[in-house]
Amino acid sequence: MNKNPVNGMRDISINEMNLRIFLLSELKDTYKKFGFNEIRTPICESISNLISNEGWENEKLIFKIQKRGEKLKKVLSNNEVKEEDLVDMGLRYDLTLPLCRYYANNKKDLPMPFKSLQCDYVYRADRPQLGRYREFMQCDIDIIGESSNLAEIDLILATSTFLKKIGFDKYKFYYEINDRKILKAIQNKIGFSDSEFQNICIIQDKYDKIGIQGVKEELLNSNFDNDLVLKYLDLLNDVNKMSLEELKKLLHDNIDVNVIENLLDIIEITKEFNIDVKFNPNLVRGMGYYTDTIYEIKTDNFNSSIGGGGRYNDLIKKYLNESIPAIGISIGFERIVNILLNDNYKIPDIEKELYCVENTLDRNSKLKVFKNAMKERDNNKIINIIKNSKNKRFQREGFEKLGYNKFLDC
Amino acid sequence: MNKNPVNGMRDISINEMNLRIFLLSELKDTYKKFGFNEIRTPICESISNLISNEGWENEKLIFKIQKRGEKLKKVLSNNEVKEEDLVDMGLRYDLTLPLCRYYANNKKDLPMPFKSLQCDYVYRADRPQLGRYREFMQCDIDIIGESSNLAEIDLILATSTFLKKIGFDKYKFYYEINDRKILKAIQNKIGFSDSEFQNICIIQDKYDKIGIQGVKEELLNSNFDNDLVLKYLDLLNDVNKMSLEELKKLLHDNIDVNVIENLLDIIEITKEFNIDVKFNPNLVRGMGYYTDTIYEIKTDNFNSSIGGGGRYNDLIKKYLNESIPAIGISIGFERIVNILLNDNYKIPDIEKELYCVENTLDRNSKLKVFKNAMKERDNNKIINIIKNSKNKRFQREGFEKLGYNKFLDC
Repeated sequence: MNKNPVNGMRDISINEMNLRIFLLSELKDTYKKFGFNEIRTPICESISNLISNEGWENEKLIFKIQKRGEKLKKVLSNNEVKEEDLVDMGLRYDLTLPLCRYYANNKKDLPMPFKSLQCDYVYRADRPQLGRYREFMQCDIDIIGESSNLAEIDLILATSTFLKKIGFDKYKFYYEINDRKILKAIQNKIGFSDSEFQNICIIQDKYDKIGIQGVKEELLNSNFDNDLVLKYLDLLNDVNKMSLEELKKLLHDNIDVNVIENLLDIIEITKEFNIDVKFNPNLVRGMGYYTDTIYEIKTDNFNSSIGGGGRYNDLIKKYLNESIPAIGISIGFERIVNILLNDNYKIPDIEKELYCVENTLDRNSKLKVFKNAMKERDNNKIINIIKNSKNKRFQREGFEKLGYNKFLDC
Repeated sequence: MNKNPVNGMRDISINEMNLRIFLLSELKDTYKKFGFNEIRTPICESISNLISNEGWENEKLIFKIQKRGEKLKKVLSNNEVKEEDLVDMGLRYDLTLPLCRYYANNKKDLPMPFKSLQCDYVYRADRPQLGRYREFMQCDIDIIGESSNLAEIDLILATSTFLKKIGFDKYKFYYEINDRKILKAIQNKIGFSDSEFQNICIIQDKYDKIGIQGVKEELLNSNFDNDLVLKYLDLLNDVNKMSLEELKKLLHDNIDVNVIENLLDIIEITKEFNIDVKFNPNLVRGMGYYTDTIYEIKTDNFNSSIGGGGRYNDLIKKYLNESIPAIGISIGFERIVNILLNDNYKIPDIEKELYCVENTLDRNSKLKVFKNAMKERDNNKIINIIKNSKNKRFQREGFEKLGYNKFLDC
């Protein structure tokens, strides 16, 4: 038998686990005060749900579960065994797809709008690297059925309340916001067609990794009209320096003015809660399903974002013959855990006491120890009864590492 | 896209989820006061760990995960594709095996004894039936490195404290206890050999399902000496009426007297905490890995047990070249959730308020609503801001079902 966890997954130590439990409890406690409801979906989804769409990179990263019994035998008895015939389920890749399925499946029992909270593990068959695992936790809040910016403001207030609560204000975090309709309007103004939108966005999204020069080269080397590409990048550069009021004037023929009013509303209202939300016309976000507002949480101390999300108003339609607006934000839980571990973040202390008994204790003496312990537990203390080992000092050091600070010889 | 969960797994409703969260919080809170540490292991284990042993039924119930990339291609390019070559991992079947692996892998960082708490999902490819799912939660506490009955008493005190806390005393739950060494001693006294022990136990374990007559028939139809079988059942019948003191005399040539003293100790000490622990010589338990004490939590109101466990002193040896005593108890979490749902169990109320805003709200009015909400949340209230839909009454009924009892028109 092999004592190691499977490749790319890991055991969590007691001390890290205690930090994670503390953070999750703060996070859920915060989000629930905003009316979010915790739900849970199975870890497995049918394979057709996981790999039904248009050849995104992520489809290569699905862990697939083999068929069983007669169904498997039948496939294996074929002359040519095809990879895709062998499996019927997969491990979920994110929490957004399962949420949309859940909503479609349970709509009649859910309030409108429905505010969902999910903290759970997702699975990606990525090449394992330092700090990147094949099993990791995502913490998402989503609002289904709210088309107005009440939703955006709710999500920003909730996440920033949590981040402040765990002391992230010292990192001066801020939100960047954009709307994919603005990206499309700028492209339209230049002369790009709607069908070119997704592909331009996919390249533009690499800005953080390859810089403006890299984006430029890749756009020029793709099938786009080179004149338009150069004009587009120039205009983006100008837009970068514009206020939203100026942008409104620039795009007044290409966009519904409410799209920009909407961003102004979000920025102005959240400002009153000391939250820094900045318009960034270069923000694109990786997933294909975003339709309108998109946002990321950043700090200048770290180069990758500590959260992000957006509107995916067309996704639920795939499960339900109905168009329902939806929006979500995901906190980078593993990222935050790592930052706090590096910071030697201390979670609030709990009194932990060790009752150390001798091997030779008779029934009555044992009974007394247990009685005392039960009384102290009723007083909300943690009492751990252990038998002294031969090397008492070494044994106690092991418990000191876990925060035990009182030792009682019984 | 399919809106249903995969076959045999299920979405959990908001109200059931709230009950589960409440129960888990009470359970963890209770167990932690006894010094148990929450840990987590990956949902996947290597396939060789999951199906390495001796042809137990459970090996047929493992969900297996397909290999990926070049490794998969290589297998598929063979002339004959074998089922077992296609997979490298599986979903965990229980929490005991992963715990032993975790202990072996992390021993140097763990205190001695190590008290572990795990509440997590396990997976079994059983035929789905009413109330039996392929994904369900197990809640285990285990003690590794404690050979004395300090461990048994800890586990019984902890579980009974939890059951009392959630009101299960009304079901007059009790513990049945036995020791596999007593079963073996009775068999030895009759004349059975040690090698017959496991197979007799497997049949005897069916007592709850097929009754004493069924057990008798199955034993007589197996390869055992029929005379011995009849003598054995007679003796078991006698033992059933005996006190442990009488049993001590009966088996004094076949067993270390401390095995029985040990049970007496457990029974007498727990009795002082008003816990009813009864010796039951017919108790066997299904898993092959139990070596010594075994126990189940029962009530006369339900025919299946609401928890159980035992000592598995030889299991860690399979991962680590070292013999380390280990013992655990598992609460039937899904069973308890079902009982409480049937009982219409009420979890403590929290004040939940709905702020209902009109679609036409301007920026300043919205800001006021958000400011009020944030103030109330600071006072620990749940405030949910929603936009009125056309059918206000229907909309509010949806929130009433979730426990919202105050509606404020903004």
